[in-house]
Amino acid sequence: MAINDVQKVLELDSGRAKELPLEEKIAVQKIEEDTIKSFEKRMAIVIPIKDEKIKLFEGVISGVPHECLIIAVSNSRRRRVDHFKMERDTLNQFCRFTRRRAFIIHQKDPKLAQALGEAGYSDLLGENGRVRDGKAEGMLAAMLIAMIMKKQYVGFIDADNYFPGAVWEYARCYASGFAMSKSPYTMVRILWHYKPKISRVVYFKKWGRVSQVTNRCLNSLISAKTGFESEVIKTGNAGEHAMTLRLARMLPYASGYAVEPQELISILEMFGGMLPAARSKALKHGVEIFQIETANPHIHEEKGKQHLKGMLSSGLGALYYSPLCAGETKKVIIDELQQQGAIGEGGEPPQPRIYPPLKKVDLEKFAEIIQENMTLYSLPEEKH
Amino acid sequence: MAINDVQKVLELDSGRAKELPLEEKIAVQKIEEDTIKSFEKRMAIVIPIKDEKIKLFEGVISGVPHECLIIAVSNSRRRRVDHFKMERDTLNQFCRFTRRRAFIIHQKDPKLAQALGEAGYSDLLGENGRVRDGKAEGMLAAMLIAMIMKKQYVGFIDADNYFPGAVWEYARCYASGFAMSKSPYTMVRILWHYKPKISRVVYFKKWGRVSQVTNRCLNSLISAKTGFESEVIKTGNAGEHAMTLRLARMLPYASGYAVEPQELISILEMFGGMLPAARSKALKHGVEIFQIETANPHIHEEKGKQHLKGMLSSGLGALYYSPLCAGETKKVIIDELQQQGAIGEGGEPPQPRIYPPLKKVDLEKFAEIIQENMTLYSLPEEKH
Repeated sequence: MAINDVQKVLELDSGRAKELPLEEKIAVQKIEEDTIKSFEKRMAIVIPIKDEKIKLFEGVISGVPHECLIIAVSNSRRRRVDHFKMERDTLNQFCRFTRRRAFIIHQKDPKLAQALGEAGYSDLLGENGRVRDGKAEGMLAAMLIAMIMKKQYVGFIDADNYFPGAVWEYARCYASGFAMSKSPYTMVRILWHYKPKISRVVYFKKWGRVSQVTNRCLNSLISAKTGFESEVIKTGNAGEHAMTLRLARMLPYASGYAVEPQELISILEMFGGMLPAARSKALKHGVEIFQIETANPHIHEEKGKQHLKGMLSSGLGALYYSPLCAGETKKVIIDELQQQGAIGEGGEPPQPRIYPPLKKVDLEKFAEIIQENMTLYSLPEEKH
Repeated sequence: MAINDVQKVLELDSGRAKELPLEEKIAVQKIEEDTIKSFEKRMAIVIPIKDEKIKLFEGVISGVPHECLIIAVSNSRRRRVDHFKMERDTLNQFCRFTRRRAFIIHQKDPKLAQALGEAGYSDLLGENGRVRDGKAEGMLAAMLIAMIMKKQYVGFIDADNYFPGAVWEYARCYASGFAMSKSPYTMVRILWHYKPKISRVVYFKKWGRVSQVTNRCLNSLISAKTGFESEVIKTGNAGEHAMTLRLARMLPYASGYAVEPQELISILEMFGGMLPAARSKALKHGVEIFQIETANPHIHEEKGKQHLKGMLSSGLGALYYSPLCAGETKKVIIDELQQQGAIGEGGEPPQPRIYPPLKKVDLEKFAEIIQENMTLYSLPEEKH
């Protein structure tokens, strides 16, 4: 397993020319336009949505490179105003004008629940028989859809992004990471160049507080296990990340906001050589993790302090309950959560629900049932 | 002369595929990647700089597509801290890593002044024999440099932009406009999708107040002259704009912040058919103006109220003193300026200095003198 240190985007668009002279080749890698496009073609961009402003969603889809397949999974309200319908209409019109295809489904769609159940993955279903709430849950459904759409790569982009240009760059970074990787088991995680803090004066700070703490705890875990002080993890909470589907189908996933840190934990547990591992192809090839720093800053909707606390404690919960997490790191986690007021005296972080790897799903069965409603999910709509 | 109404960017990156089916062809135009790149190759992107934060400048250059030639004209301070040196070093390193060439010059460079003087364009020089202060003055020098670098297109992008992805989109819009045009005399002006107003909550408003007023006055002028109520002008103050150099060399330019509205005024005066016109090739081909609305919002440095007032009154000054401007529009202008507190009772806007068209410059002479210091201006620096 290899975790690459942060790599920076120097040029958003490095043009056509084929070769850099040898001299700079070691430090700087140029990914050609054709290469990027060839990876984009095999990539699904998953956009989880939940009641985001429709203008934001419209901007986000306009930034997804043409060659990528958009898969939108919405958990938006449908009562009184049908937000999902608005999202679907927006995506439909976009697809019609730009001549591309996209896929959109509601997280509570009964057919989706049926397909998951019959394909052997009822883990995602709640008591009412529908897919549970949560971003992670939507992401998992979307990954299965990417698989039945025969994609090789899946990248996630949040729907609350103000900059189509940043969205575009994320997809390029994903493609670049896959292009650089030597393993079919690859993950690319985005490090935002700046996350502007919006106050009276725009102030661009390097990391959010939640990311800082999550990274520190992840690095503490790695340091404790390896005996070497490490600061290699800089993208513990990266909502913007991508995977080869060959890697994606092997990992266990955590629910809610624990999903992104848990992916790293899962990889460390399975391929980090710190725990006894089952033999697997992935182990032979090795897993590569790329952390890529964008040229664009990241501006998204501010969701308030309570949201941040929830994010922090569920993220750290994923670490806390990992078999990799020893007493030392556990103490760091508890201290941090108490300091942030996320847990009280003697408290512990919540234990995230862990979903089994997607490889147990009967994909043919899943595809067969989804196919029955495909005309509803696939855009643009056929005209009558 | 044709002023096109606003056209919107639907997709930042519309990929490779060749054709849209006929049906949508009328409303939606797809500009292929290859086409865009072929225009970018022939385009210089001019970045006027004046004491902008070096991080901002670094971001802006990272967004300029690889195929474009960057021409930076700096009027930054050189006392105590040599800002120009920092800009040059930043651009130099960027060029080295990305294997591209760029041009950078200081506005007060004595060789530049000498070249302008000897080539018959001492209009730009102040009493001390150097190029005058002002963004317009830097832009004029840069256009001449674009000409001697054998470019066909020149596009302007301000150095105070927070989003490399927006910069990238501007260059693409310029290329798209030129690709759509049927005339070699073309101008492309950018309409920002949103200009976010930064306050406690981010609020994205459609236009700045200054743009609104300038557009209203320009439209009033056109309405008065044509007898038809018009709202066609939506980009009167567009700092982000581009021209074919064949058009650029024919226009008179205004100093300071009047430069962008004056370009439209100059085109209306010369090619609008409202004044007796000299015969010219451009008149035969017709001039095409494109106004393109970006998908990205625009976030730049806030420069304060005084700056806005100055911008407003010099911009409206360009209109006010045009032979096209009749009593009715003059009154609208005076009212607006008084209402904004930019002029007092009985006041008039300042009359901008008008520079003659660049076609009078002896380009060979200009090139010859600039060439003497080319190793200073051309980046990356040669290694010794």
